[in-house]
Amino acid sequence: MIIDAHAHLVAPDSLYAFRALLLADGGYHGIDPKISDDALTEAAAGNVAIMDSVGTDLQLLSPRPFHLGSSMQPSRMLAPWVRANNDTIARTVALHPTRFAGVGALPLSPDEPVLVGFDELERIDELGFAGVLINPDLHEGRGNTPALGDRYWYPLYEKLVERDLPIHIHSAGCYSGRETYSEHFVTEESIAILSLLRSDVFTHFPTLRIMISHGGGSVPYQIGRWQSEALHPSLGGSPDAERFETALRRFWFDSVLHHPLSLELLLRTVGADRVLFGTEKPGSGSALNPDTGRDFDDIKPVIEGLAFLSEAEKQAVFEDNARTVFPKLKNHEAR
Amino acid sequence: MIIDAHAHLVAPDSLYAFRALLLADGGYHGIDPKISDDALTEAAAGNVAIMDSVGTDLQLLSPRPFHLGSSMQPSRMLAPWVRANNDTIARTVALHPTRFAGVGALPLSPDEPVLVGFDELERIDELGFAGVLINPDLHEGRGNTPALGDRYWYPLYEKLVERDLPIHIHSAGCYSGRETYSEHFVTEESIAILSLLRSDVFTHFPTLRIMISHGGGSVPYQIGRWQSEALHPSLGGSPDAERFETALRRFWFDSVLHHPLSLELLLRTVGADRVLFGTEKPGSGSALNPDTGRDFDDIKPVIEGLAFLSEAEKQAVFEDNARTVFPKLKNHEAR
Amino acid sequence: MIIDAHAHLVAPDSLYAFRALLLADGGYHGIDPKISDDALTEAAAGNVAIMDSVGTDLQLLSPRPFHLGSSMQPSRMLAPWVRANNDTIARTVALHPTRFAGVGALPLSPDEPVLVGFDELERIDELGFAGVLINPDLHEGRGNTPALGDRYWYPLYEKLVERDLPIHIHSAGCYSGRETYSEHFVTEESIAILSLLRSDVFTHFPTLRIMISHGGGSVPYQIGRWQSEALHPSLGGSPDAERFETALRRFWFDSVLHHPLSLELLLRTVGADRVLFGTEKPGSGSALNPDTGRDFDDIKPVIEGLAFLSEAEKQAVFEDNARTVFPKLKNHEAR
Amino acid sequence: MIIDAHAHLVAPDSLYAFRALLLADGGYHGIDPKISDDALTEAAAGNVAIMDSVGTDLQLLSPRPFHLGSSMQPSRMLAPWVRANNDTIARTVALHPTRFAGVGALPLSPDEPVLVGFDELERIDELGFAGVLINPDLHEGRGNTPALGDRYWYPLYEKLVERDLPIHIHSAGCYSGRETYSEHFVTEESIAILSLLRSDVFTHFPTLRIMISHGGGSVPYQIGRWQSEALHPSLGGSPDAERFETALRRFWFDSVLHHPLSLELLLRTVGADRVLFGTEKPGSGSALNPDTGRDFDDIKPVIEGLAFLSEAEKQAVFEDNARTVFPKLKNHEAR
Amino acid sequence: MIIDAHAHLVAPDSLYAFRALLLADGGYHGIDPKISDDALTEAAAGNVAIMDSVGTDLQLLSPRPFHLGSSMQPSRMLAPWVRANNDTIARTVALHPTRFAGVGALPLSPDEPVLVGFDELERIDELGFAGVLINPDLHEGRGNTPALGDRYWYPLYEKLVERDLPIHIHSAGCYSGRETYSEHFVTEESIAILSLLRSDVFTHFPTLRIMISHGGGSVPYQIGRWQSEALHPSLGGSPDAERFETALRRFWFDSVLHHPLSLELLLRTVGADRVLFGTEKPGSGSALNPDTGRDFDDIKPVIEGLAFLSEAEKQAVFEDNARTVFPKLKNHEAR
Amino acid sequence: MIIDAHAHLVAPDSLYAFRALLLADGGYHGIDPKISDDALTEAAAGNVAIMDSVGTDLQLLSPRPFHLGSSMQPSRMLAPWVRANNDTIARTVALHPTRFAGVGALPLSPDEPVLVGFDELERIDELGFAGVLINPDLHEGRGNTPALGDRYWYPLYEKLVERDLPIHIHSAGCYSGRETYSEHFVTEESIAILSLLRSDVFTHFPTLRIMISHGGGSVPYQIGRWQSEALHPSLGGSPDAERFETALRRFWFDSVLHHPLSLELLLRTVGADRVLFGTEKPGSGSALNPDTGRDFDDIKPVIEGLAFLSEAEKQAVFEDNARTVFPKLKNHEAR
Repeated sequence: MIIDAHAHLVAPDSLYAFRALLLADGGYHGIDPKISDDALTEAAAGNVAIMDSVGTDLQLLSPRPFHLGSSMQPSRMLAPWVRANNDTIARTVALHPTRFAGVGALPLSPDEPVLVGFDELERIDELGFAGVLINPDLHEGRGNTPALGDRYWYPLYEKLVERDLPIHIHSAGCYSGRETYSEHFVTEESIAILSLLRSDVFTHFPTLRIMISHGGGSVPYQIGRWQSEALHPSLGGSPDAERFETALRRFWFDSVLHHPLSLELLLRTVGADRVLFGTEKPGSGSALNPDTGRDFDDIKPVIEGLAFLSEAEKQAVFEDNARTVFPKLKNHEAR
Repeated sequence: MIIDAHAHLVAPDSLYAFRALLLADGGYHGIDPKISDDALTEAAAGNVAIMDSVGTDLQLLSPRPFHLGSSMQPSRMLAPWVRANNDTIARTVALHPTRFAGVGALPLSPDEPVLVGFDELERIDELGFAGVLINPDLHEGRGNTPALGDRYWYPLYEKLVERDLPIHIHSAGCYSGRETYSEHFVTEESIAILSLLRSDVFTHFPTLRIMISHGGGSVPYQIGRWQSEALHPSLGGSPDAERFETALRRFWFDSVLHHPLSLELLLRTVGADRVLFGTEKPGSGSALNPDTGRDFDDIKPVIEGLAFLSEAEKQAVFEDNARTVFPKLKNHEAR
Repeated sequence: MIIDAHAHLVAPDSLYAFRALLLADGGYHGIDPKISDDALTEAAAGNVAIMDSVGTDLQLLSPRPFHLGSSMQPSRMLAPWVRANNDTIARTVALHPTRFAGVGALPLSPDEPVLVGFDELERIDELGFAGVLINPDLHEGRGNTPALGDRYWYPLYEKLVERDLPIHIHSAGCYSGRETYSEHFVTEESIAILSLLRSDVFTHFPTLRIMISHGGGSVPYQIGRWQSEALHPSLGGSPDAERFETALRRFWFDSVLHHPLSLELLLRTVGADRVLFGTEKPGSGSALNPDTGRDFDDIKPVIEGLAFLSEAEKQAVFEDNARTVFPKLKNHEAR
Repeated sequence: MIIDAHAHLVAPDSLYAFRALLLADGGYHGIDPKISDDALTEAAAGNVAIMDSVGTDLQLLSPRPFHLGSSMQPSRMLAPWVRANNDTIARTVALHPTRFAGVGALPLSPDEPVLVGFDELERIDELGFAGVLINPDLHEGRGNTPALGDRYWYPLYEKLVERDLPIHIHSAGCYSGRETYSEHFVTEESIAILSLLRSDVFTHFPTLRIMISHGGGSVPYQIGRWQSEALHPSLGGSPDAERFETALRRFWFDSVLHHPLSLELLLRTVGADRVLFGTEKPGSGSALNPDTGRDFDDIKPVIEGLAFLSEAEKQAVFEDNARTVFPKLKNHEAR
Repeated sequence: MIIDAHAHLVAPDSLYAFRALLLADGGYHGIDPKISDDALTEAAAGNVAIMDSVGTDLQLLSPRPFHLGSSMQPSRMLAPWVRANNDTIARTVALHPTRFAGVGALPLSPDEPVLVGFDELERIDELGFAGVLINPDLHEGRGNTPALGDRYWYPLYEKLVERDLPIHIHSAGCYSGRETYSEHFVTEESIAILSLLRSDVFTHFPTLRIMISHGGGSVPYQIGRWQSEALHPSLGGSPDAERFETALRRFWFDSVLHHPLSLELLLRTVGADRVLFGTEKPGSGSALNPDTGRDFDDIKPVIEGLAFLSEAEKQAVFEDNARTVFPKLKNHEAR
Repeated sequence: MIIDAHAHLVAPDSLYAFRALLLADGGYHGIDPKISDDALTEAAAGNVAIMDSVGTDLQLLSPRPFHLGSSMQPSRMLAPWVRANNDTIARTVALHPTRFAGVGALPLSPDEPVLVGFDELERIDELGFAGVLINPDLHEGRGNTPALGDRYWYPLYEKLVERDLPIHIHSAGCYSGRETYSEHFVTEESIAILSLLRSDVFTHFPTLRIMISHGGGSVPYQIGRWQSEALHPSLGGSPDAERFETALRRFWFDSVLHHPLSLELLLRTVGADRVLFGTEKPGSGSALNPDTGRDFDDIKPVIEGLAFLSEAEKQAVFEDNARTVFPKLKNHEAR
């Protein structure tokens, strides 16, 4: 069975028109989104067709991250917008319960404690979601959100451990004027890994499960830099310190990389037991690769073709690791 | 001959004590640094010994980037500090003219035009420096410097092209509270590449030569993402657009990666004609790798051991590419 | 013939989904909106049906003001968004050229000169628009845009006079946390009138034509206050000054008031030759008035029922004044 | 008996010279104002003469609002300044106890809790004041004070209900650069009404009495807009919601409008039982109206001439409503 | 003849009430001050009586500095306020032309070029003023005005030299929360001296005459510190540099010190040819000194009693130096 | 015995290179300073030689104040830097226990409570330090630290009284662009005195001992101004108030003035029992005075030559007062 651990909601225009309305009226009027069953059914069917075309059995659906808008002001617009996304996911899952599972977002907002997201967290847990999508840069490139190693995030970690929900790390928009949102994804994934490893989060929350998007940003590629730092006395390290490559395996990573060499580097560096098949399809990788005749994000054949992986390792990547990280997937029976 | 295209000044404490003095007095008193010949001779000799121990013939010496302090306020402290660094490099080169060549910094400052660096640029050109080190994030993590594709930088590009001086891209400090300076290096290198490729800088300055530090940040690893974007109509791309992997080869990259798999990915992705041997040694990679018994930054043996590279390619990496990018190296005769 | 001088575009969700996309990607990707002919045809037909139901022959269509987003940052999102609105209006007018005429918006942005709107101004003039909609509070409640009497606006006035295009004053969103956008409309209309009358704009641009929305905000109701101030030496006035009620008649006003007593006060105060029939229908007045059994914004019967107006005055309000203010309406033949 | 519910202190220059002194010395020296009995007696007598000339028996005297200076920084200047105003009112009332009653101000300051005004509130209550003047925009046009519906104000409402003191809503200065203080009065009165009706303040404080200045700003004139919104599902309303015109009658309004049509609209819209005679005389309405030969603010004859009002209604406007809103007037016996 | 080179306007309350009015209405209404001839005559006569009581023949009158309000926002309030002060001085001088001469203020404003003061400068020169009072801290303790050595001030120096008008340095209010205005006077006088001596102002404007208030702030007392710095190589000085005590004599100083030991230190340090008799009486020194039975600011007897001064030196201090610095005093004949 | 109550650490370059390193890496890596015993021994011996040359027996050594960096951001750099200074002092004292005693700094930081300095305070007390050096302007010229009279400082005063440790007031750097750090010293000493005397600190902490640097800034010289203010009713004073010259004697002052007239004024004004011998040598006064052939800061002969002082008074200045203020000096036996 092929589980795509990183995919985003395919929704009708009316969902995004709702966001535009919220932004326009500043959230004063407290109006609900209007997404018709017909439009939603059509959108979901389109996505299932894409899945079928590339052989995906089950997708973990989260909101489109670049649409999350964590830094929207006034922040009262955030809760209805996030709720609208999660609800649309829940309706989509309900339409195809064996093909989709939900990963929900939370209305976390810059300069507010993480507690503001707890109501929605409880709500989506009750709706049967399998995990939460966390944007580590709530300022979306316009300020300095405390990094994930900061105590700011502890109440959320505690809550997630308590409810056995994993985190999918994925940044949202970026308005710095220096990076596009897509570039920012990579930056934020790297910061997420490195700030968490500099902290004692895993000491306090040893059972917390975190999946980093897009193959871990820059970290697997730049690993030599961090291996040395960990052992370097002039950089606060020590020859006796835990090796960085060991510490790095506290995380899981998805395979949204679109390039065979990168996938190979990732799998060799963190191990096949730490990589989840993910495509983000349809999405930014859905352009035709002229060299292969397939979309860049059609990476199932690429992984299947990696000779250095055993069948058991491929099975782990395609299915088992996802079940380890997202145990609530058991509620979504295979077709 | 082995040319290390990315190395930083080894200087006595008195250089850094001078920075502390500048910061303390706010630059009011206009005092010069006091770095004795003896101390400098000892520091330089130490570095030569390290080079000998790993087989480096010639190093391109630039100021320690994390000490650059581009965002120091009041900004009048910047010019004397940068000058002190460049002067110490010039003195070091003068002590060992066949072992060192200079790559100078400029006193560019946030919220000031690049013209403020021109006096120093002319000065170091006259001192025989082979290139300039540019920090693309003058705010050092505390603001939004225009990205390298912005017109802000054009007068500098024009000047560098005119004087046939290449750029070594290397960010400096980082005070965002989210990234260490070392993590920020990777972020900034990625932004540098992507912002330049989104711009028309290479159209206006086709002869501008730019070397990106640390193997290009995250870009070679995340290349699939950018390959797809370039061809993706929904992301402003087009199936007929220039391929990203082609565009990427407008840059040169140094080999400061410290890990064999990463070096391999870099060389396969951008080509051996675009990679310059670089170690940043002594530096953050100078910790002992327990797996090899050598420091992480002792990567000459690693490159020599890459079976997929021809001898001509290795010669390109170790020497020829450096001579292409830094033609003024011809003034530094081999021993 | 009944001309509704104040009405807004009825557009499909896909227009607003485009705004959400722009906001999400920060305008980096330069993508065009996707509004299908079918969806647009359906939306336009719906509006024509509404017009027929209340007896309107011709509507002046402008973008939905609360969706204008003048203060969006980064401001590069503004131009494509405004263009998308104007284009959708132009397509709607093209579908029903005898029922609609266009009033376009400009991508004016806080802290940028009005020149940034000139390209779009020329474009919509060439597209045959009859006027421009100006939001006098470009900061949308989050800053202090120069009031309309300020020299900031002069280049725009000059351009509009040159092209014989009138201004429809209508503020956009409001994010102050103190007013809803709807409350802010009234505030901004009042500021527009009073700042212009405190300035010498009409001395410099005697042929500039300005229509104030919603019956002039608070000004006709609070007129006694301003009549006294104009004549009051302790407030900078003079017994010999121009009477305020005279000065006020430099403007035109639309009849979007939804209440008979208010309409009567407006017409008696500024004169029937200065009031244009306007309904903003469908819009915020489109709720059923239980007292009349008609929508609040169905005000044609109310005006028809005002006994103190002559037939000629009613004709002026319903059609002639609109033709005076918007002479380019002559391009839209009556059915 | 004619009670003028909205009038401001007529004080000698020495009161305002004290404000200038406070501003100049930043409030450091803790000096008291020096207002001689002679000067005060003369000022008060002048006001009594004006009252006699227009037939006013009793005035409710509050500080000149545009002199209140709520946003003065450092805020320590505020308390002595407000106290000086209230004390001068108390002295004036003591000179003519049957002609004046006091409405006091509080030293509320932006970014400080309303508690900072409680000492002065208790003090003026003990001095026998009949109500308090509240400026709802403590930032005076330079920031976003929480609107009156916000919990920020609740401790004050609680305290006022406890002491049975009504609120007179009247903004103070305005330094936005867009509105004069006088224009800002109208804006703030409108915001006050609408923010309170959007909130649940009257649910929590059903006995709170609030008088809005200047005939309610723009609200009675724009009432159709709000009637529709309350019933409009797309704006958060409902056909079953309380009618806006009903809700509006939770407030009282003064008659400071200076124009017969406006007075008529006000009285017909909110009812004669909700309007208090008020003139703000001498003040900004004290210019000669060339059409009547009387000052604009001499409106007693205007109200007396409104044929649609019964005698009982006129009596309510001229006296009874004031006694309902300000019950402590009973301490000021008629002459 | 006794000339008091440092005294401030004694004005009626109505002048300061005008400032309060400006602050309250934000300067919108453009109203003029109302200072009656009677009140002004009484105030001036009071001051003459004080002068007679301590033996002063002629006073140089400038506006009360702590009332100057340089940092008032919006800055449009500044020009009418400064003009009102200068006009009141001119009227006072006109009343007693042999007892008073004017030193005028300029409406310089933070963040605006000094050019904004030129109209008033020309006006007071034409009115016959003898000098200008300059507040070197236009931000009044809330920001960093360029110090007097900065090029910011050059256009003003040029203008003053051209018109042969001297500068009286005297800071205004202080709202830092750390210093009272009175403490700030001393700080600013010290900064004025030291920043000018660090600059090349006297090289460019060798004929510029500057009088520093209050005996030069801290500088004469702390002179050893600056003498050493000038000669200290580690502080940017040089053993061959001009001696500080020589450089210091480029300034003139007034004698507003109120203490015999301080006066002695001043006179011995800068020389009797550089000190002008000044009392600032009536002012902050006008309290009774229990030890002498005279006010602290009655310092004529103190200076007369200084045994180390020759009669010629006393004559210089009491009259001649004032005539050197303020040559236009010749227009004010002795009585 | 000659005790120099105001002297600063003479340290090797490596101490200041450590500060530069902290600034460069933002304090992330938590590295310790590397100051070799040899270098420190040499530096200390150099200082002892200077002491011997001018006859000083014992110096109170504190960190170089202009190097303190209180306003460094991020503030986490402050604690290791201050600790490095205090540790270097402790090592220096340990090398010459009869010649040096320590006065330590605390890592107080702008916008943080004084509690952040308590750990270091306890640590240096246990290390045997004799007092603490307090910088009253934690913002170093870039903001408004609460003045010393503010409640902000109370917890620190309480702690110091409890441990019987005196305060040495000495400001640090200054980055206002208006004052050099050296000029700022004088400003801050004056503010310290005046803000404390305006407060009730000495009422709450009658046993708190405070030594003001550099002869009390400007206060002894400007004393007449403050004597008058204290007795002046219009300035908040009273003829019955405590005399300023009495209040001033609550402080102690050091003799770092470098000029005989100033020393005389100080001693006559505050009394010989309130002045401690101090030289700040080697330091900014260590330039050769051409008039005396001795350094400006060699002031022992100056004091010895003051004829108006008795021998007992000189003994007090040279030794006894220091023992009163710093009782823990008893732990440092004389040689």
